[in-house]
Amino acid sequence: MTTTRRLHTQQDMRRRNLAAVLYAVADGGPASRARVADRIGLTRTAVSTLVDDLLAAGLLAEAGLGHSGAPGRPGTVLALSDRGPCGLGAEIGVDHLAVCAVDLRGRVRARAAVDSANRGSQPGPVLARLAELVTHVHDEVTAAGLHPAGLRVAVPGLVSRDRAHVVQAPNLGWRDVDLTTGPLAAHAPPTADNEANLGALAELWIGDPVCRTGDVLHISAEIGIGSAILTDGRLLRGNRGFAGELGHVPVRRRGEPCACGGRGCLEQYAGEAALLRAVGLDPARAVADHPGPGARSAYLGGRARDGDPDVLRALRGAGTDLGIALTGATHLLDPHALVLGGALAVLAPWLLPSLTAELGRRLGTAPPLVVSRLGADGPLLGAAHAVTRAVLDDPLRTGAAPA
Amino acid sequence: MTTTRRLHTQQDMRRRNLAAVLYAVADGGPASRARVADRIGLTRTAVSTLVDDLLAAGLLAEAGLGHSGAPGRPGTVLALSDRGPCGLGAEIGVDHLAVCAVDLRGRVRARAAVDSANRGSQPGPVLARLAELVTHVHDEVTAAGLHPAGLRVAVPGLVSRDRAHVVQAPNLGWRDVDLTTGPLAAHAPPTADNEANLGALAELWIGDPVCRTGDVLHISAEIGIGSAILTDGRLLRGNRGFAGELGHVPVRRRGEPCACGGRGCLEQYAGEAALLRAVGLDPARAVADHPGPGARSAYLGGRARDGDPDVLRALRGAGTDLGIALTGATHLLDPHALVLGGALAVLAPWLLPSLTAELGRRLGTAPPLVVSRLGADGPLLGAAHAVTRAVLDDPLRTGAAPA
Repeated sequence: MTTTRRLHTQQDMRRRNLAAVLYAVADGGPASRARVADRIGLTRTAVSTLVDDLLAAGLLAEAGLGHSGAPGRPGTVLALSDRGPCGLGAEIGVDHLAVCAVDLRGRVRARAAVDSANRGSQPGPVLARLAELVTHVHDEVTAAGLHPAGLRVAVPGLVSRDRAHVVQAPNLGWRDVDLTTGPLAAHAPPTADNEANLGALAELWIGDPVCRTGDVLHISAEIGIGSAILTDGRLLRGNRGFAGELGHVPVRRRGEPCACGGRGCLEQYAGEAALLRAVGLDPARAVADHPGPGARSAYLGGRARDGDPDVLRALRGAGTDLGIALTGATHLLDPHALVLGGALAVLAPWLLPSLTAELGRRLGTAPPLVVSRLGADGPLLGAAHAVTRAVLDDPLRTGAAPA
Repeated sequence: MTTTRRLHTQQDMRRRNLAAVLYAVADGGPASRARVADRIGLTRTAVSTLVDDLLAAGLLAEAGLGHSGAPGRPGTVLALSDRGPCGLGAEIGVDHLAVCAVDLRGRVRARAAVDSANRGSQPGPVLARLAELVTHVHDEVTAAGLHPAGLRVAVPGLVSRDRAHVVQAPNLGWRDVDLTTGPLAAHAPPTADNEANLGALAELWIGDPVCRTGDVLHISAEIGIGSAILTDGRLLRGNRGFAGELGHVPVRRRGEPCACGGRGCLEQYAGEAALLRAVGLDPARAVADHPGPGARSAYLGGRARDGDPDVLRALRGAGTDLGIALTGATHLLDPHALVLGGALAVLAPWLLPSLTAELGRRLGTAPPLVVSRLGADGPLLGAAHAVTRAVLDDPLRTGAAPA
């Protein structure tokens, strides 16, 4: 780790100062040049030069006159451009595909989704269907004067650290799928990330303010149970990029065998299939009967709302087991908050009582437990925002500014 | 996290380039100016100016002529100074105190230790005894022409994120102890860190090469079981600085109650007190009979070496429980390697068979399990190296260069 020290050249300095100006406006809101200079501690002259470059590159826009609160004549207010670069996000779910575009201001500018039975699928046709949605969204935002700066794909599986390959996505039945060749690459080289990671980044960037502290364990579930660990505002990816596999933390010493090879894994007690089996349903049948993202959770939530004792008991048990796994995770990671996302957010009303009781019993003072506001939308929004964040982080990057 | 963007000024650039030159020599070994320039990708002229500053500040020294391998006349070889700044490290153990000094080259230049019954102690007298050792080591290295650049203290407990306070050290019986006032502050403002953190950093900096990858879970034990998580070469500290509490990961759903308030915690099955109880000894009595760092482990190791069936059974069980806790930790963190340090390194021969078997059963392919070479010395060396690393990281920092 210590042998590569990044050197800081004039070019690096300019890049970082450009990013600082953009974030001053992104985080602090539209502001005059003088106000931006105050926010980041550079001189007004230096900021003016940087702002001119960002205006020319189409990353900032002038948004009329405004008073800074200080005496003197009003300055021109700078805002992030809503006609400059935008981010394309895509999601490959087990039974749906979705694409959206967000502009630098964080507004969703276009969106498309289709049901798609992706379990046990061939990657080729799925990626071709997804590419059609991408083209649709791409054309829509291009017509609106925006410039897609990249495409990030959320995948329910393990993604290589270089973000080019889906190493393994058991619920799709995919192994070693290269996303950079083939139909998805038509507009820009796509990059991928695990859906739980992108869901957690979405929380950090646009979700509950508690997540902005940057030390958060974000728990999500679609079919499996995953989590993403944010530490000091960065995603903990692990050596191979496989960190966050909360679903395979042992909660029983000699428990049910799991597909991962282990036994007593959390997923065997709190995963979707376990919940469905606990209420007497065949998981595969349930997926056929209730296709689409979050459909089984919505169904179970409906039965819980009706007071179905089997469902209530299953969710109570799942909450307890989640509490045991999260006790261990809290001792290891000391997070500022635990966030329930994805399908778990939908089922939160019935999971939370036993989950918080178990955490309280074992931890005394547990970190606050927050239910995600983004819910199932997190990974898709996170994917699109990952692209716009990359533009803000490095405004000199190829592709950041319109050609 | 996103509202504070560090700005990069000329001063920052110079600081980083000075650090890059120092690390080029620290990591790559003594080298000529031309070789250093190659290693870090700056021009020879730029490197010469930086080197002059570092020679003047006493951080680098000229160490004779050497051939770079390239044609031409030999250049002067630069090395880190062994008469410039040094780091003071101190350790407060449950039954000992120790201090050492390391120079920029990583050599231990002075060292002192005493037995000291610190369990249930008043902080004042303990810190006064430690301060005497610090003065002794300080005077010894000062006489040798070195300049102590700071003092880091390794503590068996939780330390505040600003490194000034021991928040809680249950095995000492300490709560909210300020180290920056009182006898320790005689030479330089002391800073503290958890012993497991410093042990892990020592592994990263001077231990097994596998740890240099920067994604490592370092497990250590003195009285309790702690761990430190290195991710991308940085310590994961958590929100309050309490991350890494592996000893309180639940390994049994309804297990023994633990002092932490939980139940079934790993420490109840693999901690020192649990091992002593499992072989029919009273833990408090055993500490009195076998005082000093690592003494109980050495005693248990001796009995295991003699084939004592009770001890062998207890260690086998502890290995299995460690395997369950480390399975969960591996799923969450995806480390490149697991490192057994401290007392666990001493007992490794008898823990490893059941531990590796359990990891293999549950994980299939487990990360490599490495036994620390630094053993019980890790935290003390880590503390001293933390000071010299801070000098290399920021050569312009006050106190880095001799006054």
